[in-house]
Amino acid sequence: MSEARTIIVFPIYPDVTQLDFTGPHQVLTRLPGARVVVASAQGGTILTAEGLAIADTVALASVARCDVICVPGGGGLTGAIADSVYMAELRRLALGATYVTSVCTGSLILGAAGLLRGKRAACHWAWRDLLAVFGAIPDDRRVVRDGSIFTGGGVTAGIDFALVLAAELAGPETAQAIQLALEYAPAPPFDAGRPETAPPAILARVERGMAPTREARVAAVQRAAALLDAR
Amino acid sequence: MSEARTIIVFPIYPDVTQLDFTGPHQVLTRLPGARVVVASAQGGTILTAEGLAIADTVALASVARCDVICVPGGGGLTGAIADSVYMAELRRLALGATYVTSVCTGSLILGAAGLLRGKRAACHWAWRDLLAVFGAIPDDRRVVRDGSIFTGGGVTAGIDFALVLAAELAGPETAQAIQLALEYAPAPPFDAGRPETAPPAILARVERGMAPTREARVAAVQRAAALLDAR
Repeated sequence: MSEARTIIVFPIYPDVTQLDFTGPHQVLTRLPGARVVVASAQGGTILTAEGLAIADTVALASVARCDVICVPGGGGLTGAIADSVYMAELRRLALGATYVTSVCTGSLILGAAGLLRGKRAACHWAWRDLLAVFGAIPDDRRVVRDGSIFTGGGVTAGIDFALVLAAELAGPETAQAIQLALEYAPAPPFDAGRPETAPPAILARVERGMAPTREARVAAVQRAAALLDAR
Repeated sequence: MSEARTIIVFPIYPDVTQLDFTGPHQVLTRLPGARVVVASAQGGTILTAEGLAIADTVALASVARCDVICVPGGGGLTGAIADSVYMAELRRLALGATYVTSVCTGSLILGAAGLLRGKRAACHWAWRDLLAVFGAIPDDRRVVRDGSIFTGGGVTAGIDFALVLAAELAGPETAQAIQLALEYAPAPPFDAGRPETAPPAILARVERGMAPTREARVAAVQRAAALLDAR
């Protein structure tokens, strides 16, 4: 029985956005036969960007293999792509996995690991353009599949992404049963979830809020891309 | 500055459903001036129903007061409503709060604390009928407001609930900015999120899966209601 399990690994890191992985974690832990592992570079407790302390994460080096790797995004991605242990273990697990996946800016980490060259990928709308730095093709859909690579858009897209992945792994009936058990019939009180639908003043406000982090993030992505090219 | 903060407390417990609180936690930690506290009866690490270990929760007794209390649901609710420390602290904080709120079966815990008598409330669809045991009025909407009581439906409804609450606390522009930053433009791959829309075979399957826990949960709710009546 344990031999037949589908092993799904979330490699997290300090300042990860918690819903990027807690959303798909909630969906995928309901998959029959799945074993979901929350891991990190050194193991132990990881503090998310929101101050949530996730304990007992498994050291990535101790994960022998997995079927699915799912990389979440967040402000901590600049630290993650500069962490040689995290990146080496991520690459090792991804190369042995059947499905390589991400949520939000997690696709930038996949890109930094050299896993998205020539591949279509989703990303958080505000950072999607940076995928091109790694030779990936930015795609504005909420869930993008390119062969065995499944990527989700920003934060909450992780739930839609995980249901698509659940259908791939266990069939549409199982995915629908999970959707019903989680009462996923979303009804946002506003239609402001995408830059195309948000009022312009709201978009300007959010972009102003993100501006201070843009320079450092672009520099980190370019450094990672240069490392990749030099390899 | 810290004096002016809005204190939001999530009282969690063993076997809580993690997305019931991680969803609204993600939204509400983005509220300007909010301090979000994840607490539990004794403090320390809490293991969710999905096996996620949440560390450094604050002991409820050490939380002097809060503006918003938000009770998540989950299989562990039977243990929570039988835990006299958890229930006494929850009741103390709720009586001093401006907003008393819940997600999913968290409303049954509010009911067991005697906070929903004669009030309309939401709950996970499969357990909504049990609200009546506590004198509450079950309401099948995804987010229900009755005065200062805001309740959300099952699991994923916590995100919609939190955006409604964010708009109440900080205005619709701030709620929309949070929605955009979290790219909350949901696109479920199936329309199976409610018993009214799910294929009948899917509904039957999910109900079969929940049946083994129904008896124990009904008994626990009835015991809690009897205690409440005796008080």
